[in-house]
Amino acid sequence: MDLEVLNGLLRPKSIAVIGASNKKGKIGYTVVENLIESQYQGAVYPINPREAEVQGFKSYPSVLDVPGDIDAAVMVVPAKFSVQVTEECGQKGVKGLIIIASGFSEVGRKDLEEQVVKTAHRYGMRVLGPNIVGILSNSDDCNASFAPFLPLPGKAALVSQSGALLIAMDASTYTRRVGFDKLVSIGNMSDVNFADMVEWLGQDETTACISLYIEGLKDGRRFMKNALNTSKPIIALKSGVSAHGAAAAASHTGSLAGAGQIYDAAFEQAGVVRASDLNNLFDRTLALSLQPPMRGDNMLVITNGGGVGVLATDAAERFGVPLRFAPEEVQTELKKHMPEFGSAKNPVDLTGMAGRDWYQHSVQYAFAHNWVNGLVVLYCETAMTDPMDIAQGIEEAVRLSGITDKPITVSFVGGEKSDTAMRWLVEHGIPAYDGPDIAVNAMAALREYARNKELANMEGPRFSDVDEEAARAIIAKARENGCCNLTEIESKKVFKTYGLPVARTEMATSEDEAVRLAEEIGYPIVMKIMSPDILHKSDAGGVKVNVKTSAEVHEFYREILKNAQAYKADARIQGVAIQEMAPWATEVIIGSVNDPTFGPSVMFGLGGIFVEILKDVTFRVAPVSPDQAFKMLEDIKAGAILAGARGEAPKDRQALAEVLSRYSQMITDLGDEIAETDANPVLVYEEGEGAIVVDARIILKEHRA
Amino acid sequence: MDLEVLNGLLRPKSIAVIGASNKKGKIGYTVVENLIESQYQGAVYPINPREAEVQGFKSYPSVLDVPGDIDAAVMVVPAKFSVQVTEECGQKGVKGLIIIASGFSEVGRKDLEEQVVKTAHRYGMRVLGPNIVGILSNSDDCNASFAPFLPLPGKAALVSQSGALLIAMDASTYTRRVGFDKLVSIGNMSDVNFADMVEWLGQDETTACISLYIEGLKDGRRFMKNALNTSKPIIALKSGVSAHGAAAAASHTGSLAGAGQIYDAAFEQAGVVRASDLNNLFDRTLALSLQPPMRGDNMLVITNGGGVGVLATDAAERFGVPLRFAPEEVQTELKKHMPEFGSAKNPVDLTGMAGRDWYQHSVQYAFAHNWVNGLVVLYCETAMTDPMDIAQGIEEAVRLSGITDKPITVSFVGGEKSDTAMRWLVEHGIPAYDGPDIAVNAMAALREYARNKELANMEGPRFSDVDEEAARAIIAKARENGCCNLTEIESKKVFKTYGLPVARTEMATSEDEAVRLAEEIGYPIVMKIMSPDILHKSDAGGVKVNVKTSAEVHEFYREILKNAQAYKADARIQGVAIQEMAPWATEVIIGSVNDPTFGPSVMFGLGGIFVEILKDVTFRVAPVSPDQAFKMLEDIKAGAILAGARGEAPKDRQALAEVLSRYSQMITDLGDEIAETDANPVLVYEEGEGAIVVDARIILKEHRA
Repeated sequence: MDLEVLNGLLRPKSIAVIGASNKKGKIGYTVVENLIESQYQGAVYPINPREAEVQGFKSYPSVLDVPGDIDAAVMVVPAKFSVQVTEECGQKGVKGLIIIASGFSEVGRKDLEEQVVKTAHRYGMRVLGPNIVGILSNSDDCNASFAPFLPLPGKAALVSQSGALLIAMDASTYTRRVGFDKLVSIGNMSDVNFADMVEWLGQDETTACISLYIEGLKDGRRFMKNALNTSKPIIALKSGVSAHGAAAAASHTGSLAGAGQIYDAAFEQAGVVRASDLNNLFDRTLALSLQPPMRGDNMLVITNGGGVGVLATDAAERFGVPLRFAPEEVQTELKKHMPEFGSAKNPVDLTGMAGRDWYQHSVQYAFAHNWVNGLVVLYCETAMTDPMDIAQGIEEAVRLSGITDKPITVSFVGGEKSDTAMRWLVEHGIPAYDGPDIAVNAMAALREYARNKELANMEGPRFSDVDEEAARAIIAKARENGCCNLTEIESKKVFKTYGLPVARTEMATSEDEAVRLAEEIGYPIVMKIMSPDILHKSDAGGVKVNVKTSAEVHEFYREILKNAQAYKADARIQGVAIQEMAPWATEVIIGSVNDPTFGPSVMFGLGGIFVEILKDVTFRVAPVSPDQAFKMLEDIKAGAILAGARGEAPKDRQALAEVLSRYSQMITDLGDEIAETDANPVLVYEEGEGAIVVDARIILKEHRA
Repeated sequence: MDLEVLNGLLRPKSIAVIGASNKKGKIGYTVVENLIESQYQGAVYPINPREAEVQGFKSYPSVLDVPGDIDAAVMVVPAKFSVQVTEECGQKGVKGLIIIASGFSEVGRKDLEEQVVKTAHRYGMRVLGPNIVGILSNSDDCNASFAPFLPLPGKAALVSQSGALLIAMDASTYTRRVGFDKLVSIGNMSDVNFADMVEWLGQDETTACISLYIEGLKDGRRFMKNALNTSKPIIALKSGVSAHGAAAAASHTGSLAGAGQIYDAAFEQAGVVRASDLNNLFDRTLALSLQPPMRGDNMLVITNGGGVGVLATDAAERFGVPLRFAPEEVQTELKKHMPEFGSAKNPVDLTGMAGRDWYQHSVQYAFAHNWVNGLVVLYCETAMTDPMDIAQGIEEAVRLSGITDKPITVSFVGGEKSDTAMRWLVEHGIPAYDGPDIAVNAMAALREYARNKELANMEGPRFSDVDEEAARAIIAKARENGCCNLTEIESKKVFKTYGLPVARTEMATSEDEAVRLAEEIGYPIVMKIMSPDILHKSDAGGVKVNVKTSAEVHEFYREILKNAQAYKADARIQGVAIQEMAPWATEVIIGSVNDPTFGPSVMFGLGGIFVEILKDVTFRVAPVSPDQAFKMLEDIKAGAILAGARGEAPKDRQALAEVLSRYSQMITDLGDEIAETDANPVLVYEEGEGAIVVDARIILKEHRA
């Protein structure tokens, strides 16, 4: 990372506003006004050849006329001037460009954008935008944007791909009481993208939590890598996940990838916490920016109302952090601070009689107890208690406990007094929400963060007994013939170079060869028509299974050819495949796509109905280690079948995980060549008996003629 | 419904406060104070033998001393006096008791509660509570509770089983700006329960929407019936739906019923809209109390920001109201009020340049257009536009359109100005929310309401070719033998009385009888050990399938008996069942439970893995008509299998729906006898070929010795 350059761009010590104006209503006016109003302490250089002064600052005809150094140049001049201005900025030694102007790729002028970036890079500059609102930073007193004011101060940084949303969220930070140190509008991402922002914010000392509104990533893999390397929580709201508009795909696996599936996998693999909607982004950001991760599964709920306690219990299950009963000793201690009819289980119900003291004692004890990994405190406003009193009791308990490495979230349900008390709690570092479900959801985010971080891992150990060169040779040969789809036999050959167990399959181009191959492989065998023009072999009468004798091979060879001709007279026939007949077993499907954002990604599911009707599949960005692959087997809803449900013997999941891992390595290594693949079916035998790929398909990328 | 009595209880013209007090801090003080502060216009009679006057009102020793009529008596005296006080109220001719006092069934004194209700009923009185907060009504200026003030006025009525939550929600109505006309605390529901409240609120002219917080219903069927008969929207937040704590069950079906499944079914069947959490209850109540139902699937979204538009699109899919593109003519018209780079598809993106005029034109046109069934208007606060201006444009457009039979919801994302504008919208009858997802969710509630109302139906036409008497005779005979579980043969006999197709099964108690029966039924047959002590017949070596000759029958008869003895020496052997061997087909499972809340409820799922591992089942409160049963077949995730997926022939769903419907009638008619049932498997053949119950199980209720 070009740290110094990015610091200049994102925390500039001096700013030129190119297109600065004295005319109210112009963006060039607003940006200068905002710099003044935010009390920016750095140098401000308006650039406008037609003005001597802009809003009290001396104005310059060009950046080249500015006497001092310029860290960042905010460009609000029309797009057509952008290349020239960039050139001048480069000559001046500007570190970064904040291009607010629109009129670039969003209206089809990608060429202009590329020219700007190329010019900027020639001078070592980085470009934010174009088509953005600008940047806002509380810790730098810097509003270099046309958003009206700095956000409510806080510890999170928001990076938004939507400018309109950033402006609206800016205003919203005050009404929602969720603070941000920085807001960064990222727009067209011609140069600086989410991957860069995650990397830079990861080392930025004024940022505690990275909050992202993403419509689509560029360079998904670098984003994942940078996210993995960051020691700060990252929360992402990804929009555009509805099926409406998902692209058509060539393979089975492709059609299952849909709009959101691979993003889901990638975020989980990279340790990124998800937000379900806009409010959830605010709510979870608040928790992640104020509290440490929840490093275990034991969440304790303390409440003064049974109703909200039950709602919290339901929510806990819904959000993946189900409640467990507290151990005896915890219950015994908590029983001391509640009436007889209270409950010390979990939720701990102090009853409506609970005042500050009971809350404070219970919270202090529970928060300090080893069993508790995270504490959710609920309060229903009553006529007898003062919400502020309760809030102060909670805060004092947390402080006196001396515990700083486990999280607490709070919910008060009530009116103005509760709102005020919750605001006070947030100001004192304790996230508080107006619904029990939300407090639980926020705690779930802290748990997800810890859990994702533990599991997050992109690289597994590589298998060394693979022959990438041989695979590439097979592909190259197929390309010579102008093919974009490998035949089943070619596909299987590629699979074998990566140590994948495949049912042996050979091409026979005559009856005699068929018999010879059948005898070499050993009966029974399967015979299949091989033709690039016949995709549905069974429909064409082109498949014979359980062929047991040479006489049958002769007979079926002729029959298959006859059927094929009857099915499609002009079909090009390559021959008849002679295939080892694997004994039947549990069918699974492995497949892959080469995702435009994340690259090679592997899919796993159970065969037949499970994939086709129930869509019970799971994806990972490749490669995956055998351990991660094993987790994929457990991830699908039907996972119990492989573990040996309904009295059946467990299947060889170890072998299957290795197959998946090798498969993922293959599609990664050959990611420049392979578009999509299917291994369908793969048969999995009982433990110790392995697995075998019965049918295989590789679709190549179209990048070569 | 005893309308006059309930009116007296819930909208009293005169109130006695039994236990009224002059001591601040006592509930008897608070209730009188609240009646004064809410400016209650009816007569108030404090009852306290030790005071001459309470807070300015003349006090009486007993209700019997009060000169005028008393509609409602609020009881705050200790539980031990409740029966005597009830007696006096009865003698006085009080209509209803509002028993705030606790110390009844919630602390194990169900007896006391029953005595009070019995006494009250003797005098024709109804009882609300005990263990409640009281009742609050804006339209009656009546706060007969210890909640501190009347809620923000509105058109909804909230009935809450949790008192603490009611008080907290009361305060919360002001901060959330969601108005209620009434709040009713229902507590222990010793007499008046949710079914009563739904019925009474259904005819109450000051209630437009019925909002319920439910922990558990009493008398679920009457609740459903009353909900069905109500022409007002009902929205319910049901807590306690987590698996944690679901009861153990005897049958397969029972174990699948879980905590929430039958509630889900019952609410849908009764046309009740669900709330997912507390905030959602407020949000949906606001929409349902202000807007008409959405009577079609076409929801149009108008926005000034692409970001919130995409979020709304995602939310639409998530909440079951996916967006469709607007027709050409609509797009052409809308295109007139946006710049070139706007979009007239759906979402309609007016762009950030949109001011009041564009909003107003678009909203007015779209709202009036026939294609649009519901309109969601989104706005992101910008520096250039005034939120109040936009709000007024939207309101005026709706008003000028003259349309009142379709719904609109709004979301503004922004700061204080947006909040103020949204408040103004709500005051003008347009529900407005601070997130696009919430506005879409609220519209989804209005769609659910319309859809549920269309589908809602508890009664189908009855099959008349059933023989309930014969079924009861079989059960009675089984009970004579002290049995609580019918044998397979007995179960099948009961099934047959309801016209269910069962695989013929007869009991053989000797080898010769076995052969005779086998020949009567026709080979091949199935032979099964019949013993109340052997549940897992296969494990005991007690099953032989595909038995083809009399020689085999002889041989297997001996073998089965030998195996059974080896398996369990002291097992009571009834004989060997000789069963018609139905040709194999698609396996499904039908079952039932007798739910403590809703009574007989029928379950459907696909056999084997689908039920046991994927839990892919659906429930309905019985009975269901064949049409409703057909919908069950489509409801499960694997439903496509029955429709004929993957090139297979469609299954006989018509026949299966009839089986389900007859089954549901059977368990309903015999609901006093039957606890749980399983028909597992039921085999379904191709269209026109019917279905057959292969194995059957009936578990009786334990109510008779």
